[in-house]
Amino acid sequence: MAALRNGPKTEGKRAGGIDGPTNPMVTPLLTDLYQYTMAYAYWKAGKHNERAVFDLYFRKNPFGGEYTVFAGLEECIKLVANFRFTEDEIAFIRKSLPPSCEVGFYDYLRGIDCSDMEIHAISEGFVVFPKIPLMRVEGPVAVVQLLETPLANLINYASLVATNAARHRFVAGKDKLLLEFGLRRAQGPDGGIGASKYCYMGGFDATSNVAAGKLFGIPLRGTHSHAFVSSFMSPDEIIEKSLKSRDGSNVCEDFVSLVQTWLSKLKWSHISGGIFGETNQSELAAFISYALAFPENFLALVDTYDVMRSGIPNFCAVALALNDLGYKAVGIRLDSGDLAYLSSESRKFFRAIEKEFKMRDFGKTGITASNDLNEETLDALNKQGHEVDAFGIGTHLVTCYAQPALGVVFKLVEINNQPRIKLSEDVSKVSIPCKKRSFRLYGKEGYPLVDIMTGENEPPPKVGERILCRHPFNESKRAYVVPQRVEELMKCFWPGKSGKNREELQPIKLIRERCIDQLGQMRPDHMRRLNPTPYKVSVSAKLYDFIHFLWLNEAPVGELQ
Amino acid sequence: MAALRNGPKTEGKRAGGIDGPTNPMVTPLLTDLYQYTMAYAYWKAGKHNERAVFDLYFRKNPFGGEYTVFAGLEECIKLVANFRFTEDEIAFIRKSLPPSCEVGFYDYLRGIDCSDMEIHAISEGFVVFPKIPLMRVEGPVAVVQLLETPLANLINYASLVATNAARHRFVAGKDKLLLEFGLRRAQGPDGGIGASKYCYMGGFDATSNVAAGKLFGIPLRGTHSHAFVSSFMSPDEIIEKSLKSRDGSNVCEDFVSLVQTWLSKLKWSHISGGIFGETNQSELAAFISYALAFPENFLALVDTYDVMRSGIPNFCAVALALNDLGYKAVGIRLDSGDLAYLSSESRKFFRAIEKEFKMRDFGKTGITASNDLNEETLDALNKQGHEVDAFGIGTHLVTCYAQPALGVVFKLVEINNQPRIKLSEDVSKVSIPCKKRSFRLYGKEGYPLVDIMTGENEPPPKVGERILCRHPFNESKRAYVVPQRVEELMKCFWPGKSGKNREELQPIKLIRERCIDQLGQMRPDHMRRLNPTPYKVSVSAKLYDFIHFLWLNEAPVGELQ
Repeated sequence: MAALRNGPKTEGKRAGGIDGPTNPMVTPLLTDLYQYTMAYAYWKAGKHNERAVFDLYFRKNPFGGEYTVFAGLEECIKLVANFRFTEDEIAFIRKSLPPSCEVGFYDYLRGIDCSDMEIHAISEGFVVFPKIPLMRVEGPVAVVQLLETPLANLINYASLVATNAARHRFVAGKDKLLLEFGLRRAQGPDGGIGASKYCYMGGFDATSNVAAGKLFGIPLRGTHSHAFVSSFMSPDEIIEKSLKSRDGSNVCEDFVSLVQTWLSKLKWSHISGGIFGETNQSELAAFISYALAFPENFLALVDTYDVMRSGIPNFCAVALALNDLGYKAVGIRLDSGDLAYLSSESRKFFRAIEKEFKMRDFGKTGITASNDLNEETLDALNKQGHEVDAFGIGTHLVTCYAQPALGVVFKLVEINNQPRIKLSEDVSKVSIPCKKRSFRLYGKEGYPLVDIMTGENEPPPKVGERILCRHPFNESKRAYVVPQRVEELMKCFWPGKSGKNREELQPIKLIRERCIDQLGQMRPDHMRRLNPTPYKVSVSAKLYDFIHFLWLNEAPVGELQ
Repeated sequence: MAALRNGPKTEGKRAGGIDGPTNPMVTPLLTDLYQYTMAYAYWKAGKHNERAVFDLYFRKNPFGGEYTVFAGLEECIKLVANFRFTEDEIAFIRKSLPPSCEVGFYDYLRGIDCSDMEIHAISEGFVVFPKIPLMRVEGPVAVVQLLETPLANLINYASLVATNAARHRFVAGKDKLLLEFGLRRAQGPDGGIGASKYCYMGGFDATSNVAAGKLFGIPLRGTHSHAFVSSFMSPDEIIEKSLKSRDGSNVCEDFVSLVQTWLSKLKWSHISGGIFGETNQSELAAFISYALAFPENFLALVDTYDVMRSGIPNFCAVALALNDLGYKAVGIRLDSGDLAYLSSESRKFFRAIEKEFKMRDFGKTGITASNDLNEETLDALNKQGHEVDAFGIGTHLVTCYAQPALGVVFKLVEINNQPRIKLSEDVSKVSIPCKKRSFRLYGKEGYPLVDIMTGENEPPPKVGERILCRHPFNESKRAYVVPQRVEELMKCFWPGKSGKNREELQPIKLIRERCIDQLGQMRPDHMRRLNPTPYKVSVSAKLYDFIHFLWLNEAPVGELQ
């Protein structure tokens, strides 16, 4: 374990230079038992090497929206690249299957890897839509099946929480700093680590999660808690009171007194208007101590006792004292109460200080807000007007409170070159058969117009050429499109033995930029929170006809009695 | 990584014979950055070794209920027992803090462990209630703070999902088999692994998650998917058709023909009543292949095409053929449609076969149901009447869809023997100060009546002695209780250097039994789904007085203007 902790980036390096999954618990055992019972049944029937094609996709965008951010691909490729059984794992599978299972099966498992597999996928960070395959996984049916559960697991939450982050960013606006603070409320340790990674990807600026900072290079943020404030009694307990000025030219021997002088000035100044009397002394001591520790980074949580009567005056006294020594306070954090009102009142106070004491830019002192924020509260704050510069968002963001699961599925679409369809009485659950390609067609104004799926061997859509796009299941919904740009959606991220080029995995910062870029390219009516317009997803005329031929072929004919 | 995978149970063994956390990503870095900035500020102020007491508790039961199952303790103790920094981790912390931070701090971090800490906690699997500390963590303030985030993370989801499992069990009833099937929809890999562990603890019988089966010894279940069914074309493709009888006395050379004979018998028998014509041949092939692989464990998913017209007749034909060879089919799984209706119709068909073909117990063939089940759908099924024996529950269970987060908090209640209180305009958020003990008081009928918190040094409640139990914040709510049994809730799970006995961590099976036992002991009106009665949580008269003394002391006095 120590080895792992000291070098996770190199430790897992095994296949083709691709590291293992971030979480070492992602092994070939992280799957449903039925994948092994099926693998055995395939093997027993001599079918295990039949070439199968599975599509991984979802059926409905989350959060009542009309878009989803695709995330989690890198972890999938890391699993695939390193997919091999240890003897210990094989022994456990053997113990878990009936004793009647033949031992040859375990020899077969011993030889399994993903070298005979091909994975095409949409690039991580893309905006994606229902029914369009996010990944197309092709290979020996038994091995592909083993991957179903982990691939769904790795994509489901990643895409869900990245989408949630993008939605929060959309409401907060581009100019706000967004901080992910969710670790303590996340669904388990890597619910937290995954949240930090994918919220950053979806457009957040930083996280409080140190482990995620280390693993993924995400910027870290954090100051202090209420407990820090209440752990102090009074400024009397501060022993080391000196603070060197920022430029090192002089030392203030009693910073505590300097703060107290400022507090007194503030109290008797007309700007305080008598709103505060004696401020809380444990809070004052905590703020002074924090400033002594971090004179360059003084940011204080001001709501432990009373924001306007204690927290703000205490903060300002410390900030003004720091200013005397050439330091500039970073700002405050509000973690309770009416954030619109308190941020506006704080801003007024900061501005009054700027004016009264000729303190340049003090009015712009940063205000961070937290406390159970979500899309709705951000929207409400915008409507009321507020003065918050940065939002710290936790529970609702990381647990995806508004919708805690995305329904990614993994469906067989072809085996031995035979297209397969999964029927259902619920039309939205019918799968789209065939090994397919998919394309995004762009219109004159640069917006994506429609995604279209075609059979693998159909000629792809061409710029400037009219093409019929059909709804896969509703015969009356169709439209001709003359694309101004055609973008093939899936690239080969795992070529196996095919000889194709392997698309490189990209650093998270690039994926994040792509994601922000893609979100910005969408037509605004697809993105709005209320009644967004669905983005169109279609199939080619040829694929449409084939789907319906296969459907009629497979569905039993009823007999009315 | 391979080493970890081959021997996770011994690999992490480091401190006092206690393994490291199940997830090796649970390290001292799995915390919020502000825990480190605070640690630095404490260290800089010379306050880092001040003795602090923190309580970990939640404020409101989840899912609209009136109880919670406490889970996650073992992982916390594993973290605490192995809490030490690697050089790599210290280097990262140094990189993450401002360069002005003094190097002495990193030497201090190098020496940190939890040997000077004491942790009292309620035993895992206990039924617990709001405000009562689940854990009381005592030690040097800087170190205890570092633990805040991971302890909250490890307890929050564990307790939430264990409670969710207990609630599902309550609705399903004691005699049903409950299977956790959530891995693919869980919030990340150990969202899945944690779900499997804690759902089992909360009363489920088994999981589909192989990794969780290996890590925790949880029974595993699983059969096959829709893809398995549609991967076959027709029985013609089955090459190896022979099956030995169960007792080994003879071999059926053409099991496919035997099944087809039975299918024909069924079709023309009056029991089928013309409900089916030609059944789906790919499904029939899949069922036969699965039976050939698992003659002792034949369980078939019967809804790929049409349950009553194809799945059930195909299943029965295979089951009857197996029966000819001495095998007994396990049953069917339904994964879509009207589960009440389909299970009842399937049961009727099984009973008709039992009667028609004198097939003993065929009517009792197992019926498993899955498909987006939750408390509500289980309740609706019960009201409609159904014939399901086992439920496979995934998404709603593991993501805790009805409420995806529990609000566990970690509050400072004492430092340097000085009690501390955290005020809030919202009374429910005011913390209960002091290092405390807590007790569960039982009444005559054996039910728990009330939990009471007392100061550490107060005489504990005694059997047969009247004691006043007060609501902590509402002065009019109080009651005298004469307990028939008094149970101290917290035990010492981490004695540090105190010399106290360390309470042993128990195997998950024992914790699960205790949990089921505890749930069974509760007065039924606390447990019901609709309008349950809140369980009473109280403080001693002495603690009540002290809370209110401290409250008045800390709260600023307003000035009306």
